[in-house]
Amino acid sequence: MDKYFLKFSHGIPKYVAISNHIKRLIDNNEIKDGEKLPPIRKLAEFLEVNNITIVHTYNVLKDEGYAVQKIGSGTYAKRKDSFKSFRREYSNTIKKVSSGDFKKYIDFTGESPCSDFFPVNSFKDVLNEVLDRDGVDALSYQEALGYAGLRKSISKVFWNDEVDIDDILIISGAQQGIDIISKALINTNDSVLVEMPTYSGALSVFKWRRANICEIPVGFQGININKFEKILRKNNIKCFYTMSYFQNPTGISYSRQKKEQILRLADIYDFYIIEDDYLSELIYDKNIEYATFKSLDRNDRVIYIKSFSKIFLPGIRIGYLIPPKKFKESIQNSKVNTDISTSSLMQRALDLYITKGLWKEYIDKLNKIYSKKYLFMKEVLTKYLYDKVSFIVPGGGLHFYVKINDRFNINSIQLFRRAKNKNVLIMPGTIFYKESVNGLKYFKLGFSQIDKKNIENGIKIIGNLIENYRVCK
Amino acid sequence: MDKYFLKFSHGIPKYVAISNHIKRLIDNNEIKDGEKLPPIRKLAEFLEVNNITIVHTYNVLKDEGYAVQKIGSGTYAKRKDSFKSFRREYSNTIKKVSSGDFKKYIDFTGESPCSDFFPVNSFKDVLNEVLDRDGVDALSYQEALGYAGLRKSISKVFWNDEVDIDDILIISGAQQGIDIISKALINTNDSVLVEMPTYSGALSVFKWRRANICEIPVGFQGININKFEKILRKNNIKCFYTMSYFQNPTGISYSRQKKEQILRLADIYDFYIIEDDYLSELIYDKNIEYATFKSLDRNDRVIYIKSFSKIFLPGIRIGYLIPPKKFKESIQNSKVNTDISTSSLMQRALDLYITKGLWKEYIDKLNKIYSKKYLFMKEVLTKYLYDKVSFIVPGGGLHFYVKINDRFNINSIQLFRRAKNKNVLIMPGTIFYKESVNGLKYFKLGFSQIDKKNIENGIKIIGNLIENYRVCK
Repeated sequence: MDKYFLKFSHGIPKYVAISNHIKRLIDNNEIKDGEKLPPIRKLAEFLEVNNITIVHTYNVLKDEGYAVQKIGSGTYAKRKDSFKSFRREYSNTIKKVSSGDFKKYIDFTGESPCSDFFPVNSFKDVLNEVLDRDGVDALSYQEALGYAGLRKSISKVFWNDEVDIDDILIISGAQQGIDIISKALINTNDSVLVEMPTYSGALSVFKWRRANICEIPVGFQGININKFEKILRKNNIKCFYTMSYFQNPTGISYSRQKKEQILRLADIYDFYIIEDDYLSELIYDKNIEYATFKSLDRNDRVIYIKSFSKIFLPGIRIGYLIPPKKFKESIQNSKVNTDISTSSLMQRALDLYITKGLWKEYIDKLNKIYSKKYLFMKEVLTKYLYDKVSFIVPGGGLHFYVKINDRFNINSIQLFRRAKNKNVLIMPGTIFYKESVNGLKYFKLGFSQIDKKNIENGIKIIGNLIENYRVCK
Repeated sequence: MDKYFLKFSHGIPKYVAISNHIKRLIDNNEIKDGEKLPPIRKLAEFLEVNNITIVHTYNVLKDEGYAVQKIGSGTYAKRKDSFKSFRREYSNTIKKVSSGDFKKYIDFTGESPCSDFFPVNSFKDVLNEVLDRDGVDALSYQEALGYAGLRKSISKVFWNDEVDIDDILIISGAQQGIDIISKALINTNDSVLVEMPTYSGALSVFKWRRANICEIPVGFQGININKFEKILRKNNIKCFYTMSYFQNPTGISYSRQKKEQILRLADIYDFYIIEDDYLSELIYDKNIEYATFKSLDRNDRVIYIKSFSKIFLPGIRIGYLIPPKKFKESIQNSKVNTDISTSSLMQRALDLYITKGLWKEYIDKLNKIYSKKYLFMKEVLTKYLYDKVSFIVPGGGLHFYVKINDRFNINSIQLFRRAKNKNVLIMPGTIFYKESVNGLKYFKLGFSQIDKKNIENGIKIIGNLIENYRVCK
């Protein structure tokens, strides 16, 4: 009962104060999901308020999805919904950001390069060249696998001509890749292994596909191969979804040795690796070698997904997929069933953009810009948060994943809300876990959309907020 | 046993002749799926051939998926796979068509307007105007619901400003619309009612979603409302998927009265109508009134899907969706999980294209061109096929659906193959039915991609082919 105790402040109605307090207890798992809340009379007595105040309180909790009433039995806490409703709160925030409502915010939720650096005029020239060259074909022509020219460029520029162009399928970004692979390969109750934490968009797809989701923790050293094999032994895993470079959100990259171990296990335990190579263009640390699972794959175990939207331009919606021969037809059919094909003009424009060498030029430019920003970010994180958080040094990419140290009594959902009040946006860890509760101590900071000055200001603000919750010792 | 009888011709190996004959019997359902084929010795005796010839024959049938061997029990016919393998054969043909391999063919498989009439230069101007106006935003900016400008134009131009722009969701074509609706609304074993026959792309989605698919026959008078209600009474139908104008493939349009009856039933039996309004721009018959289910919907029962790809340009991949308020959020999330968002530049270009009145201009032009072609098509169908087929007069759209009269012993798969040998491509009815066998007497003729001369030649060739299979009386 003690945990229900709180002091009332002047000016806040008591039922509001009590319900906020209980919500916090539920969010922090101090009241467990499904735990019975005290009977109205008992709690009223304990807090020295009227019964009607508690009736009010419980009504608020029910309305906000924090509690359910079971007739004749009492009121019960509901945690799952609170995370669900937080997801909604978070995604509404992101929607507002993307529609330009939060222009004055310091936004650490950005996940792709800032479009300010994009040479829009050269892309325009390329578009016009395509339309002059191909006429109406550029807008109407549809090939099942995608524009052959683009597939040829991809094989040449990114795979040294070693991938057959008929093994490449053009898709509308990585999210679609995950979706069509799931439809082609994963049936209800099939087991999918994901990194914990992982990209929430992938989790959603697997959940919607009603897969049985198993998780392998990604720690500061990456995943543990022995644990990995233990999971394989116990579960009939069909696919392992992984981001091999700058894993989202942890920032971890797999060593070549670990990749080879996992490929070997894929053979032994007969599963497939869905490799989401979303940001490997941005390796700043020269010690990180670029070798994808796909490039090391000898037994056709890897379904490789590459998004151009992520590194290039979010609005362009193009990526590609290289499936094992075995799944080629089913994945291709899955694409047709999903949206027939990807915008033809955009494919042709991207092709010409790559062929002309403009792609490489742009990526080189991004590398220069972001490696500097990355170092600055590391510096200010160390400067302002050194005693408050711990973090992995990713060596590339566009974000840091940060753990709030135990001596601070604030979770990432609370921090998100407090920071938002101060015009700073962060990504709470909870959205990267199947069971959100596991992400309560983590948050992600994407630095691509912010200039140095605001990075420093933002991190300072976050530092101050966390400091307020230091547990006295 | 009699049905196995055949006469051998000189020059064709006996095992080839026998296996072709058996394949025909299976295709025509004269040998049922799962029916035991005669023991080798017995069939050899009956046809007066060596045992080894029948061994050969059965091996061919097994290789081609027309038979399975059960060890110690014998050889069994397999019909399902024959349709499956025909679907593959058909879809490979279509892929070759779309990649330009069949340029010399008279192609009745076309489903969208011929791109030759598209004013590519004005579209190019529009693209440039967008890029000059919006700069990099045109390529990077993403709004969850799609570009607000386009949503505004849609509401204004197509809905008389009566639809709230926040109720419109931009999608990458109708196929994606069906896919994301299915993910948001339909769970495993939920019942979906479809027209029989219907669009194969929708059938695929519902099958992949593992829905329980119920069918309501579409006859020459459309669907029968009493039958419809009978199905509703017996099954807990969640959605009814319908094409309200020029239903694909039958060409039937729903009368206003029938639409109102169905909307009433939707209220009574608590189901939702997925209206795929894919070609209503092309109404040639002035007696056909334009009033969608959505426009008649008073109780938020309709999920409206409109594709711009179909009527406009297949390569542009844009459409929109208007969901009932109840499903707004879940369908929007489903879109995000499927491919985040639709190409931003294309949305802006389409918006400007509509705003400038170019859309209307283009549709008017198409109407003029295709109403003439439609009348010509009707004329030659009547002239060359009058005693061989019967068909519905759709009054609009880009195709006719044709039934082979009973006195001709050829099915649409056979006709497809024979016609292909004569450089003519048709769409066999089998691909439009959950149980392909139901489509064996039908085929679809799209006339949008062919000029008058070739329409006439093509229909003549089809007429001659069917004539060869006249049953003597």
